[in-house]
Amino acid sequence: MFVKQINDIAKEEVKAGTKTTRQVLISPQEAPNFAMRKFSIEPGGGMPMHTNSVEHEQIVLGGKAHVVIGENSYEVKKDDVVFIPAGVPHSYETIGDEPFEFLCMVPNKEDVIKIVGC
Amino acid sequence: MFVKQINDIAKEEVKAGTKTTRQVLISPQEAPNFAMRKFSIEPGGGMPMHTNSVEHEQIVLGGKAHVVIGENSYEVKKDDVVFIPAGVPHSYETIGDEPFEFLCMVPNKEDVIKIVGC
Repeated sequence: MFVKQINDIAKEEVKAGTKTTRQVLISPQEAPNFAMRKFSIEPGGGMPMHTNSVEHEQIVLGGKAHVVIGENSYEVKKDDVVFIPAGVPHSYETIGDEPFEFLCMVPNKEDVIKIVGC
Repeated sequence: MFVKQINDIAKEEVKAGTKTTRQVLISPQEAPNFAMRKFSIEPGGGMPMHTNSVEHEQIVLGGKAHVVIGENSYEVKKDDVVFIPAGVPHSYETIGDEPFEFLCMVPNKEDVIKIVGC
């Protein structure tokens, strides 16, 4: 068991993104079935269209973004809940002046990430 | 894939708790590996000491609570990350005048819940 304070958890740069950092809140080594991460994208940043080999369960903590998932485009904001199935291309682009922050949970399976067009 | 707005999701009473409601943000039927739920405990409410047969990955969204996990007692607040292994007794009791709100993710496995002492 544990309780962690989020400010004690290191932020890592997400190299595939722009102005994007990630904190691993609960790692695959710490829990048997799935991991919890927090992503923060500064205004003007984003993540290019890509696929993951695992699904994403996400909830927006703050800010706004254009999110494209497959053929659909959404404007998402605080408290929106997002499900991206494994293998479906998706991208993020911030809207406005606030950081776009969200939690992203993934199962403890190998995650092969492919940038679309590369 | 989907995007949901949290206010569109029904609140269910949690009968084992006091002043406690639950929203199922992503159900076991909607995702292959784990579910996302949001719990809200009004001031003065709580959940008695109990065990679950599945682990919990939690993050506090607002408010404060005394949380007992096994032999340990914590005061938790917004942004704290909590991991409760399967089978470890735990309880919640709000602190202060704000609702205590948290996300709780669980794997898609049968969850046998036992109230300690019952």
